[in-house]
Amino acid sequence: MDSVLADTEKQFLIWYERDYGVNVPYESLFGKNEEDFFPAKGAIRKMVFTPGFFRTIPVMPGAVEAVKQLMNDFDVYVVSAAMEFPNSLIEKKEWLEEHFPFITWKNIVFCGSKSIIDADYLIDDHCKNLDVFKGKTLLFHAAHNVGVTHHQRVKNWEEALSAIAKLEAPPTTEV
Amino acid sequence: MDSVLADTEKQFLIWYERDYGVNVPYESLFGKNEEDFFPAKGAIRKMVFTPGFFRTIPVMPGAVEAVKQLMNDFDVYVVSAAMEFPNSLIEKKEWLEEHFPFITWKNIVFCGSKSIIDADYLIDDHCKNLDVFKGKTLLFHAAHNVGVTHHQRVKNWEEALSAIAKLEAPPTTEV
Repeated sequence: MDSVLADTEKQFLIWYERDYGVNVPYESLFGKNEEDFFPAKGAIRKMVFTPGFFRTIPVMPGAVEAVKQLMNDFDVYVVSAAMEFPNSLIEKKEWLEEHFPFITWKNIVFCGSKSIIDADYLIDDHCKNLDVFKGKTLLFHAAHNVGVTHHQRVKNWEEALSAIAKLEAPPTTEV
Repeated sequence: MDSVLADTEKQFLIWYERDYGVNVPYESLFGKNEEDFFPAKGAIRKMVFTPGFFRTIPVMPGAVEAVKQLMNDFDVYVVSAAMEFPNSLIEKKEWLEEHFPFITWKNIVFCGSKSIIDADYLIDDHCKNLDVFKGKTLLFHAAHNVGVTHHQRVKNWEEALSAIAKLEAPPTTEV
């Protein structure tokens, strides 16, 4: 959900500028862990525990259309490692109702570890989630994961759809 | 979680008596769907959408000790189909923190359908959850599931522990 359906890194930049008056360039986040994104120590932790943070994250460009398209061929589940931030639970549910009303509550999962999830594909921005997943993995590009090379990277939702289409295509046979 | 770790049927009886002044005997619930437990129509639905309902459910007898014991041999996850009742999300999280503080947030899952859960065992009171599960199943006895015969029934946590011990025992070999 975060940094895949929701543009969480954009929200960090917007809130940092609002609260600290500093416009941090996106590229300066590349390769840093999220908690080290900004010079002000603890800024990220403060944000994710502030009511309203998760409720107001901008939607990732292309996400709504891409999920709708995937739903033609797949059972799509939204799986969010939300349990670490209990205040985010209801905000994330409301955010999904607002921006992805076509995803039923039956297909939403809030968890801690994603190792318990059984699915064919996982599109995620975090190695800690992808590394323990048994199905096929796509690493959704994010500033914090620049440098990761052991999962297939997709830069955006357009690339994610192409990658899945290729993985789903029947193997070509010689004539 | 409901009717397995939390004694949800007991909570229904307590709240029904409190709100409608009628002491309904537990046995009268046997074999009924939860929504048909009580003569007052919509009573159950009203309860589960009332703030405080999930936060104050009594703990199922023996559940705390049983989970502690299972954690010696298993990774124990609490998986609750909580997504239908968004108001329950934070209450369920707080309830677990109070009564099962030894279960980390990493091992808590709030979902809609449990078909996406990958585990070895599922202990559940609902066929709709057990029927779609790929691992071994135990039906935790509840008034609403009296009459169900296609899953191994356990009457209480003591029986659940014995059942798992038997399922885990190496097959006896002839000498």
